[in-house]
Amino acid sequence: MLKGIDPLLTPELLCIMMAMGHDDALVLADANFTAQSIAAGKPVIRLPGVSMLDAVQAVSSLLPLAADVTHPVAFMAVSGEPDSYRSALQREVITRLTPELLPGQSAEPIERFTFYERARAAYAIVLTGEKQPFGNFILRKGVIGENLRP
Amino acid sequence: MLKGIDPLLTPELLCIMMAMGHDDALVLADANFTAQSIAAGKPVIRLPGVSMLDAVQAVSSLLPLAADVTHPVAFMAVSGEPDSYRSALQREVITRLTPELLPGQSAEPIERFTFYERARAAYAIVLTGEKQPFGNFILRKGVIGENLRP
Repeated sequence: MLKGIDPLLTPELLCIMMAMGHDDALVLADANFTAQSIAAGKPVIRLPGVSMLDAVQAVSSLLPLAADVTHPVAFMAVSGEPDSYRSALQREVITRLTPELLPGQSAEPIERFTFYERARAAYAIVLTGEKQPFGNFILRKGVIGENLRP
Repeated sequence: MLKGIDPLLTPELLCIMMAMGHDDALVLADANFTAQSIAAGKPVIRLPGVSMLDAVQAVSSLLPLAADVTHPVAFMAVSGEPDSYRSALQREVITRLTPELLPGQSAEPIERFTFYERARAAYAIVLTGEKQPFGNFILRKGVIGENLRP
């Protein structure tokens, strides 16, 4: 445990989040996600028993979201539903992340197999204990620092 | 970089600090310290160019000090000086850490070769870029959490 750090952030997850750079992506996946095979050697951090909402809260407490893209958050769209559909869990997670979004930014629904491709390109996968299906999200990391000296 | 996290804390150092438990010790060493041989396989985190004061500030921003010992902070005493002697750097570091100490707690001077033994028993060594000799410190980790339910 460390001062002010959410204890759901394991040492390895903290290390990964700090090591990620601008626009590196972190997948937060539900318990059924094919994390290990999709990761193909990239880190998979396991948070068994941890809900997606708690994992999102812990990660977003430290991880800045990318300010220079329209969709710093993406989620796996529920198959067979219209593009505007959001499950209860998806609504809850998006509501939790909304204070982090800038004007004009929003969360992007991504079709299941396209989501897998995005996950393959991510920096790491956090496999939560979330049991709700289609409980998969991607966060793109932003920057912290000074303004550009022109 | 992460929100509110001192960027001197490398991903590996963050990982180590989070992984440490109650009363695990972290050595903060000057640039001449025999870190690699004393560590004997335990982690050595290198912060080249970083002063001891900056390293202490970064580490103590997250690491709680042990509340249940008299000396949660120790330092390598300057050889040949009386026990009460403190170098300028030692005074500065102790002043920086004093707000973290409880009543009755203090920093403990430790003779050089005894310090090496303590360092061998530590969890990890942070090798800073500090050029002042005898600029070596040990911090013992405390706990964060709830009070005991009796």
